[in-house]
Amino acid sequence: MSLPRVVIVGCGFGGLWAAQGLRKAAVELTVVDRTNHHLFTPLLYQVATAGLSAPAISAPIRHILAAQRNTTVVLGEVQALDVKKRMLQLDHGAQLAYEHLVLAPGSINHYFGNDAWAPWAPGLKTLDDALEIRARILTAFEQAEREDVPARRAAWLTFAVIGGGATGVELAGTLAEIARHTLAGEFRHIDPRKARIVLIEGSDRVLPPYPADLSHKALVQLERLGVTVWRGKRVTGVDAEGVAMGAERLQAKTVLWAAGVAASPLGQFLGAPLDRSGRVKVEPDLSVPGHPEIFVVGDLAAVDGVPAIAPAAKQMGAYVARVIRRRLQGVASAPFRYRDYGQLATIGRNAAVVVLGRLKLSGYPAWLMWLVVHIYFLINFRNRLMVLLDWAWSYWTYRRYARIIIRAPE
Amino acid sequence: MSLPRVVIVGCGFGGLWAAQGLRKAAVELTVVDRTNHHLFTPLLYQVATAGLSAPAISAPIRHILAAQRNTTVVLGEVQALDVKKRMLQLDHGAQLAYEHLVLAPGSINHYFGNDAWAPWAPGLKTLDDALEIRARILTAFEQAEREDVPARRAAWLTFAVIGGGATGVELAGTLAEIARHTLAGEFRHIDPRKARIVLIEGSDRVLPPYPADLSHKALVQLERLGVTVWRGKRVTGVDAEGVAMGAERLQAKTVLWAAGVAASPLGQFLGAPLDRSGRVKVEPDLSVPGHPEIFVVGDLAAVDGVPAIAPAAKQMGAYVARVIRRRLQGVASAPFRYRDYGQLATIGRNAAVVVLGRLKLSGYPAWLMWLVVHIYFLINFRNRLMVLLDWAWSYWTYRRYARIIIRAPE
Repeated sequence: MSLPRVVIVGCGFGGLWAAQGLRKAAVELTVVDRTNHHLFTPLLYQVATAGLSAPAISAPIRHILAAQRNTTVVLGEVQALDVKKRMLQLDHGAQLAYEHLVLAPGSINHYFGNDAWAPWAPGLKTLDDALEIRARILTAFEQAEREDVPARRAAWLTFAVIGGGATGVELAGTLAEIARHTLAGEFRHIDPRKARIVLIEGSDRVLPPYPADLSHKALVQLERLGVTVWRGKRVTGVDAEGVAMGAERLQAKTVLWAAGVAASPLGQFLGAPLDRSGRVKVEPDLSVPGHPEIFVVGDLAAVDGVPAIAPAAKQMGAYVARVIRRRLQGVASAPFRYRDYGQLATIGRNAAVVVLGRLKLSGYPAWLMWLVVHIYFLINFRNRLMVLLDWAWSYWTYRRYARIIIRAPE
Repeated sequence: MSLPRVVIVGCGFGGLWAAQGLRKAAVELTVVDRTNHHLFTPLLYQVATAGLSAPAISAPIRHILAAQRNTTVVLGEVQALDVKKRMLQLDHGAQLAYEHLVLAPGSINHYFGNDAWAPWAPGLKTLDDALEIRARILTAFEQAEREDVPARRAAWLTFAVIGGGATGVELAGTLAEIARHTLAGEFRHIDPRKARIVLIEGSDRVLPPYPADLSHKALVQLERLGVTVWRGKRVTGVDAEGVAMGAERLQAKTVLWAAGVAASPLGQFLGAPLDRSGRVKVEPDLSVPGHPEIFVVGDLAAVDGVPAIAPAAKQMGAYVARVIRRRLQGVASAPFRYRDYGQLATIGRNAAVVVLGRLKLSGYPAWLMWLVVHIYFLINFRNRLMVLLDWAWSYWTYRRYARIIIRAPE
């Protein structure tokens, strides 16, 4: 008798927690991902800003799941999904049949219909994105050093970060630290400390999902680090020379996009209702309406009151694994309930905000908590130790380990 | 009164040692490199084989030389050199005049007139090369796992390394370790331990510059690690499917080139005699015949009895800095004398060969010496410590830290 086939698409936090939750289940499990690694995305901005190397926040999926004997890992991208035939089509021509399907593909950069902006304002979703951003940031200072015309030099020394959410705040805060400390004294024709870091936010405050008083504290901390914050500005154009906001322009040769993500386009194969961002409006057990055999977890799932953050994806993945295990035993499951362990956003050295139920922290204590939590959750012991050493070294020396331009920016 | 202008082109071992030798000289020093980092090339094969991250063996040139107040670092590539006008033309349009010029551009991959082989057989000279090779090696196992046709699967599991010098031996030995240990047990459709690693050497022994008995010991160690060594084979073709040696063919989807390097084409601007590999036949003080103001160090310099290895480049760089310092004081210098501190080549875990004057070592003691020497010479304390930890961890666990495919191989 063959075992029920379960396929998980995507091995981020949602997919990996679902896979690990099925490790002892009597199923034939296949995990499909288009990369060979699970990525600790909360620290991706550190790779982009030359604080960590790419391998420090990545672990091979095949290695993590090697001991799980019921599990096969496939490197591949889903091209099509036939919900009637219960069949996935992969990019290398293979087909994959399933009895239970878990979709955990995550989200992609989203330019609100202005895809032409993408080449000028890379977003931060993959390791490749992070290395591209790293190359652009480091190259901008080199270009400024070589440039004689003052206006062009100023444009190379102006960095625009679009979007004042967690990613934008992290990028802007770290950029300010690089300019003020890491690179200080290493150039002869420019003073990197005079670089301008402008964080552009459409609403009237940074970190909009946080309580208003923490948003204000984040703003104060950003400005103390040297970031110029522009609020209530609507970006109307991005090109090779900078950012347009209506009639206003900011001349900036380096523009980073942290303003929006959209759900993976995989949701469109389901024939189920999607929300404005393309997320699937799932049932209380995270299954797709009309398709109890398909589950959606992580950023692709629209669930009221559940934010698009790593802890939520993990909880959804673990929940769906439990639902499948129970279903195989003929037992029904209670609806998914999100447990809110709080939210943290880091801003820079000794600067962060934390909200944890009624507890609100900012500044050094928040930063310390952020540090401990992130070190703790890094995927395996070795990464944890090495990242801790990297950070301790960076903290005391202001140096940044990974200041290497491997290839010319695109 | 303006100071004499010294320009150093290239910041590998030769260029960096020359720059540091001039740190207290009354000169205006400019260091030009087309990358932003000094690279510890003896460990580049570890980045290519996923043992170390790229930043672990690289250090920003600007940072290394930051405290040297007479020195300006420029990111740029030399497009032309006018020896009459004493002027360098850089890629971004800038011109750089010099009174003393030190050329230390290193070498490039060389396919003996068969540049069409290059896309199928990447060489190992830059970080970009290393990451390309890493992606190809890791992707080959993934492709084999997805492949149903046995002949094609076998071709994905066959790795050809062309060239039995130090780089070829290191790559082949490490590939065997990855297949036999690192990846064992992580696949479901293939057994990575059955991968074939074939080292192809044209002459009758590996490591030709070493004494014959050490070449033999290296051969024995390679075979013990699981490498198939083919000697006396002349490669006549490389394509997408493998390697041709006359009528014989090896079907291999992954081919690595370690058979030859040529001197940088910069030597052609000098109008001076070059040897067969394009190296400049320099005077006893490493200056260019007819141009006492131009020096050549490292792989571009042809000096009898001096091998193209890092210690030789360092000695030449330091020597030329001394010649320039003395010349500014009106003092002549004795000819360059190479001090032979021996040669080391690593083969794999506990396997290496060392020749040090009359002392010859192989196996574990040679490997231990290789390890200590390489850790010691890593550019700064932090890298040394981190690389040591990386290696200790890899040694005990057989895992490899950097098993991350960042982007699809080209």
